[in-house]
Amino acid sequence: MKIDYGLALADGLGQGRVTKEALEGFHPELIEAQNWLEAKRRSQEVGFMDLPFQDLSPILQTAQEVRRKFDHFVLIGIGGSSLGAQVLFDALWNPPHNPQVYGEGPSFHILDNVDPVKTTETLEEIEPENTCFCVISKSGSTAEPMANFLVALEALEKAVGIDKARRQMVFITDPEKGNLRDLVKEEGYRALEIPPNVGGRFSVLSPVGLFPAAVLGINVRRLLKGAYQALKSCEKRDISSNPAWVITALHYLHHTLEAKSISVMMAYYEKLATFADWYRQLWAESLGKEGKGQTPVKAVGAVDQHSQIQLYNEGPRDKIITFLQVKNFPTNRRIPPLYPQKPALAYLGGHTLGELINTELAGTASALAKRGVPSMTITLPSVNEGHLGALFMIYEIATALMGHLYGINPFDQPGVEEGKRLTYGLMGRKGFQEKGKEAQEIWSKGKEGTLTIDLGD
Amino acid sequence: MKIDYGLALADGLGQGRVTKEALEGFHPELIEAQNWLEAKRRSQEVGFMDLPFQDLSPILQTAQEVRRKFDHFVLIGIGGSSLGAQVLFDALWNPPHNPQVYGEGPSFHILDNVDPVKTTETLEEIEPENTCFCVISKSGSTAEPMANFLVALEALEKAVGIDKARRQMVFITDPEKGNLRDLVKEEGYRALEIPPNVGGRFSVLSPVGLFPAAVLGINVRRLLKGAYQALKSCEKRDISSNPAWVITALHYLHHTLEAKSISVMMAYYEKLATFADWYRQLWAESLGKEGKGQTPVKAVGAVDQHSQIQLYNEGPRDKIITFLQVKNFPTNRRIPPLYPQKPALAYLGGHTLGELINTELAGTASALAKRGVPSMTITLPSVNEGHLGALFMIYEIATALMGHLYGINPFDQPGVEEGKRLTYGLMGRKGFQEKGKEAQEIWSKGKEGTLTIDLGD
Repeated sequence: MKIDYGLALADGLGQGRVTKEALEGFHPELIEAQNWLEAKRRSQEVGFMDLPFQDLSPILQTAQEVRRKFDHFVLIGIGGSSLGAQVLFDALWNPPHNPQVYGEGPSFHILDNVDPVKTTETLEEIEPENTCFCVISKSGSTAEPMANFLVALEALEKAVGIDKARRQMVFITDPEKGNLRDLVKEEGYRALEIPPNVGGRFSVLSPVGLFPAAVLGINVRRLLKGAYQALKSCEKRDISSNPAWVITALHYLHHTLEAKSISVMMAYYEKLATFADWYRQLWAESLGKEGKGQTPVKAVGAVDQHSQIQLYNEGPRDKIITFLQVKNFPTNRRIPPLYPQKPALAYLGGHTLGELINTELAGTASALAKRGVPSMTITLPSVNEGHLGALFMIYEIATALMGHLYGINPFDQPGVEEGKRLTYGLMGRKGFQEKGKEAQEIWSKGKEGTLTIDLGD
Repeated sequence: MKIDYGLALADGLGQGRVTKEALEGFHPELIEAQNWLEAKRRSQEVGFMDLPFQDLSPILQTAQEVRRKFDHFVLIGIGGSSLGAQVLFDALWNPPHNPQVYGEGPSFHILDNVDPVKTTETLEEIEPENTCFCVISKSGSTAEPMANFLVALEALEKAVGIDKARRQMVFITDPEKGNLRDLVKEEGYRALEIPPNVGGRFSVLSPVGLFPAAVLGINVRRLLKGAYQALKSCEKRDISSNPAWVITALHYLHHTLEAKSISVMMAYYEKLATFADWYRQLWAESLGKEGKGQTPVKAVGAVDQHSQIQLYNEGPRDKIITFLQVKNFPTNRRIPPLYPQKPALAYLGGHTLGELINTELAGTASALAKRGVPSMTITLPSVNEGHLGALFMIYEIATALMGHLYGINPFDQPGVEEGKRLTYGLMGRKGFQEKGKEAQEIWSKGKEGTLTIDLGD
């Protein structure tokens, strides 16, 4: 796996303040941030870097049982509780074209949203009596998984009665606290533990991501091995060999010296595009504080060349781009040399689709570089557990370091609380009456500018 | 259908320069832009506003035949040639929960990317001998649809021979020019026409979107009727009743007076979220020029409350948000009142999932407003053809007006050409050797900063 970042440097771009010297001169700040993070790790305040060393037996044992007993598996969770599993499912579980087909296991579904159509459709795709529901919420109080949990429990109870229903559920939650943990204690639900020092968006390598992965038949040991190897690379105190340092330094310098306030991640392989959703959550929720932070944007190549590249090339110069490239696709396809007399068709013949998509990446990155738009390209030899485990770890470390450089706490999310309180108020939750009134007042101000479009129906 | 925009005004936000007076004072600029657009329409330089009046018979006749003859339908097109059909498919074609189930018709697939796995999987999901391939490219030279066309043609030829293969294809392209049109003339492929004065991203209401829609069984007359009604609203020279003017003025004023360089569209209904992809292409490719333009961002509620809202609330104050809300979902589901003794569960019981998701929208918009983040909410009574037709037309007009206000041409896309030329060069297309050398030089500069991560495999 490698990162090419020459087109994020002034030399490669022919312009800009982010020179090789600026990058090397950033060493003291990186050392300082690294020391801060390692101290957090040593004091066990921050736990994600220790996940490669966890005991996998409870995860593997429970997953094995679920694979044996059930035809369907529904993950109920949102944000950090679902995105990691979604990445692993999309990237790795794609028979018949994946060399790593994981044998027969339950069908896999994610219920993240409280979209009534999505929930209804998901429940209709499964047979409750043959389904394991896995409810993931560290706090045990997030509205969306709690609502979907209640809906699923009712469906299960109708199908098999309450006692069996409870045995078809697995909770993944805090070891001590919260509603779900209380239910484990009171009613005997099965549960796996999220380490208290691992936050939701840093939890993909905890049971939150590993248990669903193991249910899918994905080799979670290899995931952790990739993460461990990456962790070792990220301990090197040398920017020429530390991938987290390169990502951190280039994003931070381009943000502060060149006003690149938007970080685009553009994946040139559709099954890897969900990784950009995961990155988008990690980057936004960790760093968007006190007016700081870049806005992460997901893009998919080559599709978004026909949607966003005009803007990236000629719009405001506010973007830095990370391309994700795959060298060897699980399958490939030759473009036949039909119509050799037509110039717009002839040149395609004989190439593979994989060559075409990767050549488009090179052409696009080069055109952007000509205009001074910085980019780096992460190349995976192929998409497998090791590479994904490594990517997760590298980006988690880079995000933590960015937070320290910005001078904010990358591990909290105070900015989502007020919306929750106002929603509680509007939903009539006890103790939130005042918030409900406040929300109604604000929401009604929204209707003071209003316009109706008459569609004649 | 209505737009509430009180929370995009200084009164509602308690701060900012975008006051009711500023909005009303913007009238002369809007008049000027509207006159410019109407002159373009009268001179037939710009055709999208005339699409509601087109003759539908070639579309309906061909679609009827495809529905009768084929079991599978594969749309080959990218960007403006596929996004509109994708919106219509996602939003409207969702049996069994759509009141408008469109009867039996062929299965529907979109081949936009040249991702080798996606193309391979799509071709394996269909039987070539029972499949209609619809190739959409105005120029007839876009690399991705041309490559997928060649791959599909080969698969068809193997299955049924070249003569039948040609009869299983429908082209949608320019009436006179380009490779696809030449093939129509030379080899008798069937074709529908894209009016020369309708650009790709403004073409959803032309055969580009209507033909696939009609194949799906969607009522395209109702789509056009909605677009027509919206067109009439958008001719009103009064900001209190012209939806395009409201969208244009609020985005332009927030961009220029309040530095809102990012326009988020956040849909609180998953099947409507593709509309944000369509918007994202329209806004970016039309307006991202000469350093101008906002970066459009797609978001999905309530999911992205757990991903992006921290950033929107407490990050840089560079965003204006458009929420899409649906009043009546095709299906809904009551959350059962289990666990009334648990405060984090009790308040949910008895509400529907639809109530919860819409209440979360209100809570989120209110929390954002408290921090001065402007938003507007577009509410659809339900998701149907008329509402989608109206949304398409309103946003196309708003985009054109924005372009004129920025002083750029919203109908061209010069910034995508260089990337194409460099790609041609790298692919060995005749006449592009120099470009190929240039791209190789730039691309190799990218490798001057490089780092390998050893994963021990």
